Amino acid sequence: MEWLNDSVTAPEGFQTYGTACGIKKEGLDLALLYSEEPCTYAGVFTKNLVKAAPLDWNMALLEEEQKINAVLINSGNANACTGNAGHKVVEESARTLAGMLDVDEKNILLASTGVIGVQMPFEPIKKGITALVENLEQSAEHSHISAKAIMTTDTYPKEGALSVTIDGYQIKIGAIAKGSGMIHPNMGTMLSFVTTDAAIEQKALQELLKSSVNDTYNMISVDGDTSTNDMVVILANGCAGNEPIKYGSAQYRAFEKAMTMLNEKMAKLIAGDGEGASKLIEVNAEGLLNKEDARKMVHAIISSSLVKTAIFGGDANWGRVLCAMGYSKAEFDPSNVDLSFSNKKENVQLMKYGTPVSFDETIAKEILEDELIQIQVNCHSGWASAKGWGCDLSHDYITINGSYRT
Amino acid sequence: MEWLNDSVTAPEGFQTYGTACGIKKEGLDLALLYSEEPCTYAGVFTKNLVKAAPLDWNMALLEEEQKINAVLINSGNANACTGNAGHKVVEESARTLAGMLDVDEKNILLASTGVIGVQMPFEPIKKGITALVENLEQSAEHSHISAKAIMTTDTYPKEGALSVTIDGYQIKIGAIAKGSGMIHPNMGTMLSFVTTDAAIEQKALQELLKSSVNDTYNMISVDGDTSTNDMVVILANGCAGNEPIKYGSAQYRAFEKAMTMLNEKMAKLIAGDGEGASKLIEVNAEGLLNKEDARKMVHAIISSSLVKTAIFGGDANWGRVLCAMGYSKAEFDPSNVDLSFSNKKENVQLMKYGTPVSFDETIAKEILEDELIQIQVNCHSGWASAKGWGCDLSHDYITINGSYRT
Repeated sequence: MEWLNDSVTAPEGFQTYGTACGIKKEGLDLALLYSEEPCTYAGVFTKNLVKAAPLDWNMALLEEEQKINAVLINSGNANACTGNAGHKVVEESARTLAGMLDVDEKNILLASTGVIGVQMPFEPIKKGITALVENLEQSAEHSHISAKAIMTTDTYPKEGALSVTIDGYQIKIGAIAKGSGMIHPNMGTMLSFVTTDAAIEQKALQELLKSSVNDTYNMISVDGDTSTNDMVVILANGCAGNEPIKYGSAQYRAFEKAMTMLNEKMAKLIAGDGEGASKLIEVNAEGLLNKEDARKMVHAIISSSLVKTAIFGGDANWGRVLCAMGYSKAEFDPSNVDLSFSNKKENVQLMKYGTPVSFDETIAKEILEDELIQIQVNCHSGWASAKGWGCDLSHDYITINGSYRT
Repeated sequence: MEWLNDSVTAPEGFQTYGTACGIKKEGLDLALLYSEEPCTYAGVFTKNLVKAAPLDWNMALLEEEQKINAVLINSGNANACTGNAGHKVVEESARTLAGMLDVDEKNILLASTGVIGVQMPFEPIKKGITALVENLEQSAEHSHISAKAIMTTDTYPKEGALSVTIDGYQIKIGAIAKGSGMIHPNMGTMLSFVTTDAAIEQKALQELLKSSVNDTYNMISVDGDTSTNDMVVILANGCAGNEPIKYGSAQYRAFEKAMTMLNEKMAKLIAGDGEGASKLIEVNAEGLLNKEDARKMVHAIISSSLVKTAIFGGDANWGRVLCAMGYSKAEFDPSNVDLSFSNKKENVQLMKYGTPVSFDETIAKEILEDELIQIQVNCHSGWASAKGWGCDLSHDYITINGSYRT
């Protein structure tokens, strides 16, 4: 396994570009991802009952097991709560792009992120599409531009790619993402677009994406609000030349491992860039009766406003971690809990078998001033564990979200 | 029904006082509530698996249907996550107070609020108890002192009382409370102590408290964190002289109505004083299939960080309300939703049958600058409704909780 210095165009056969079409007042706001070779497509979407118009479109194509050639992504407008007018813009966008790429409109995916409840204008998209199609390129530079074009309140573009050799074939996987969360994403929306040149059967790809997302994107939280627009989609164009990967095979497991490494990297990039965040929080919950309980516990801790504000303030108020564990609905005995905080250099134990341990406040303070803070919990009830990522809750979160529309 | 100008000592036979015993660095931190006549006792407690030491004590007494003469409440230390040492302080406090009041230790309730995971000192409590017992009084002034003594980050004491005539007997109900929430309370803890001179059977009192709490304290949220210390207890000493009220009787219904009015007042006082809050948010969800769904929807809206920050910033970003409704797990059809914001004077409709309505931003801004903002939602799916209260999420919340221990 080797990390690469590109993102969505690292895999063979993918091209991309981003542009400023005018949906936002200024700046890049439209990106196109393209593969001439039709791609096997898998996706997971928000569980919010209120779904943005492009999600209805993409979910229908997934059901039909359509092959995909292109994804068009805009920032600045979520195209959610926009009624029939919103759906029309989706259809017109797909039709226009399909015409220019000489494919069927059912080979086009769409994604949006931005403010909810404002009608989406079609004219800027139409203009933007032309500029994008004319400038498609397989290059790290263009991938970087696309990663920027899908940003809203993100403070940095999120990119990653790696290669893995399976059965002698070099297979590459790349991704760009934006936003902050999946189960609990920021209204700014969590979007991730993963490309690979592997050949893989559709059912296998969908299964693999689901299980990988459960351990990565689904284990991050910024503010407990599940967006109307969240999605992770993966496109596999088969350009690596391998035999199509089958579900459950040794090749499947090798591919899944590589995919999950990349998705974990992307998930951490997203959590660390939560709106207003200054620190990445990694939570490890061990010793639970089952995986489900371990995940619940991690979620409760990374989602607690009080844990997040304490870490923002550098205050080792560890009782709040215990409190979050207690309402997580995971089964455990509070009198058996071990708890510690650490960074890459140091560690302080705060509770041992349910009893507070006196600790060095100076070291605790040092740990909490780091950019990456690890919270370890062991409940000594079983053998299941889970890991997840969140961020601190800061003044900037309030500032950003107090005037998001203006 | 008539509102009174006292609180816990409005009902006959109750006395109280508060003092500064030294658990906090400075200020009032210990309160005693006393009735010479033994009281019928009912209570509801946090559902958090991690419970503070006094809750274990009180829950055991409720199970045994003990009569209660006194409640001792401290602020400044939650006595939670304090292991065996914490339980010992509870026992010693009850024993000491019981000795001075010449009752059994099983006639004493205890409550704590403050920082978690710090050992509770017994010496200040012991000293404080003497001062309290010597100065007990039935007076609005002393009730006010006690309401202050149970505060942590509260910015004002929370008191209320009313009288209701049932079968020719004047029955009074009073309450003091602190904190911010019950299902979703602030770590600062939600405590409420209700007194009444009504005579009422224990099972009836417990049923009545549970159902009243479901529509009042359980319908407020400040930050989604359920405390280790939450409790609402009610003491009924029978001094009004009425025949004991039986479950389901006409007297029961009259008493329940009065109790719920008082509890709703207290719940709103708590929600409006959420840490850092500058505005009270009232959410009305109508047209749901059942009460459970209506409550879920209200909870999702009042708990959404993004709704709360938008209201803090005076930004009519109503799409966030729709988004919260969508992940609330309540069943509804997004294309049937009506949504409006209002204050006491004005109203703006934002969505009509699932379609955005163009609205006057100036009026919306005016509404959002008020101290009480009402959000009305109608899903047109059924006839169930629910009401709940929350507050905005402000910079002060971050400041308060970033350095709570220091």
